[in-house]
Amino acid sequence: MIKINDYERVDDIQREGYKLIQNPKAFCFGIDAVLLAHFVSGIKIDSKILDIGTGTGIIPLILYAIHKKGKFVGIDIQEAMVEMASRTMMLNQVSNEIEIKCLDIKNFGQDFKRGSFDIIVSNPPYMKAATGLKNSSATKTIARHEVACDLEDIIKASNFILKERGQLFLIHRANRLVDILNLLRQNKIEPKQLRMIYPKITKPPTMVLIHAVKGGGLDLRIEKPLIVYNEDNTYTQEIYDIYEKKML
Amino acid sequence: MIKINDYERVDDIQREGYKLIQNPKAFCFGIDAVLLAHFVSGIKIDSKILDIGTGTGIIPLILYAIHKKGKFVGIDIQEAMVEMASRTMMLNQVSNEIEIKCLDIKNFGQDFKRGSFDIIVSNPPYMKAATGLKNSSATKTIARHEVACDLEDIIKASNFILKERGQLFLIHRANRLVDILNLLRQNKIEPKQLRMIYPKITKPPTMVLIHAVKGGGLDLRIEKPLIVYNEDNTYTQEIYDIYEKKML
Repeated sequence: MIKINDYERVDDIQREGYKLIQNPKAFCFGIDAVLLAHFVSGIKIDSKILDIGTGTGIIPLILYAIHKKGKFVGIDIQEAMVEMASRTMMLNQVSNEIEIKCLDIKNFGQDFKRGSFDIIVSNPPYMKAATGLKNSSATKTIARHEVACDLEDIIKASNFILKERGQLFLIHRANRLVDILNLLRQNKIEPKQLRMIYPKITKPPTMVLIHAVKGGGLDLRIEKPLIVYNEDNTYTQEIYDIYEKKML
Repeated sequence: MIKINDYERVDDIQREGYKLIQNPKAFCFGIDAVLLAHFVSGIKIDSKILDIGTGTGIIPLILYAIHKKGKFVGIDIQEAMVEMASRTMMLNQVSNEIEIKCLDIKNFGQDFKRGSFDIIVSNPPYMKAATGLKNSSATKTIARHEVACDLEDIIKASNFILKERGQLFLIHRANRLVDILNLLRQNKIEPKQLRMIYPKITKPPTMVLIHAVKGGGLDLRIEKPLIVYNEDNTYTQEIYDIYEKKML
């Protein structure tokens, strides 16, 4: 029997009967993790997939639920998140497929072998360390602000950890687009696919999904817009498909 | 009386009674020029505005028609276009406000004073010199392919020609987005505003409008999507407003 603390909540992720342990006072996953997981492509039977800043472990759990293949490693700098996510994997009996480790991505040179992963995914902290209202809890602050690591740390580490032609999938704030595209090209991970997420068709995009390839050629495909809400505030068919039918 | 050659056509631009001389066999302006002109902001009474690759002169003509202020210079490398655009300005009696010159932007260091313009606009050739089917006529090829100048030439020249905090407005192919954003930042013209142009809400974007500021701070605003057609292939209200009501 896996221990569930009384301040924790266990959610059904509506796929394969998998459950996710969350601590609502600390951090619960959002739509961004779900959209990122659904944006990832190219997982093969022997793919090694790394999730940087895995938090509750939601992204590898969704990915394994969808694809039922690949070897996943989720890392997070926060001990408490790692301990909780590890229990989630035990609860679902996927600890052999999804390993959760407490690591600081800034130490990538000592913790990872060069070129050892096929795919990296990351839903990193969005906000610059010094900007915005910090969340009250330390857990939330680290999950949402670039205090423990920033975008450049993640992209530099990805260049080292990915094999040639390895794939990086990111979701980030739309207003960081110039930073993201510049850092990717500087670190020789070429942006190949980009999708803007608009809350409504009449609103500016809030987030952007990016797929980049280490050592890839110069050729960017921008996808049709991903619109979250209809004008009447109901979910669009695409979001409905992702949440209700296919996943979560 | 301004001479109109028999292979030329005179179009009413539906604003201020202005007419545009075009040679349908060589090159006619498209929706991109109109959308770019409507994206430009911040023209003041004493603004100096440069249009790089002005072609028929359509962009300065629309801008002057809308704003009725500013001093415009349109440059083009093609003698025949410059001669025709000059006749358009005479025809509309705006030759004092819109000067058309035959210059090669690559010679910016000798033809322009550093920091001499407030605003630069450009609807440059979209295609890499070596890619795509070249158009049959030389005029079209130069207007559409990067044979006479490329994006980097234009952005480098803009850094020299713009004053500090000067504004650059561009329209380009969406798949060149990474190049554009990288070149802008490398040349210290920071992207501040970006708008994706989607032919339909269900389609990838074809073009992107970019507003960048020389020496500007890091802060990108991405606008709501600009959708050209409804699902039934009629123009959207926004395009209708631009074409039918406000302009052209």
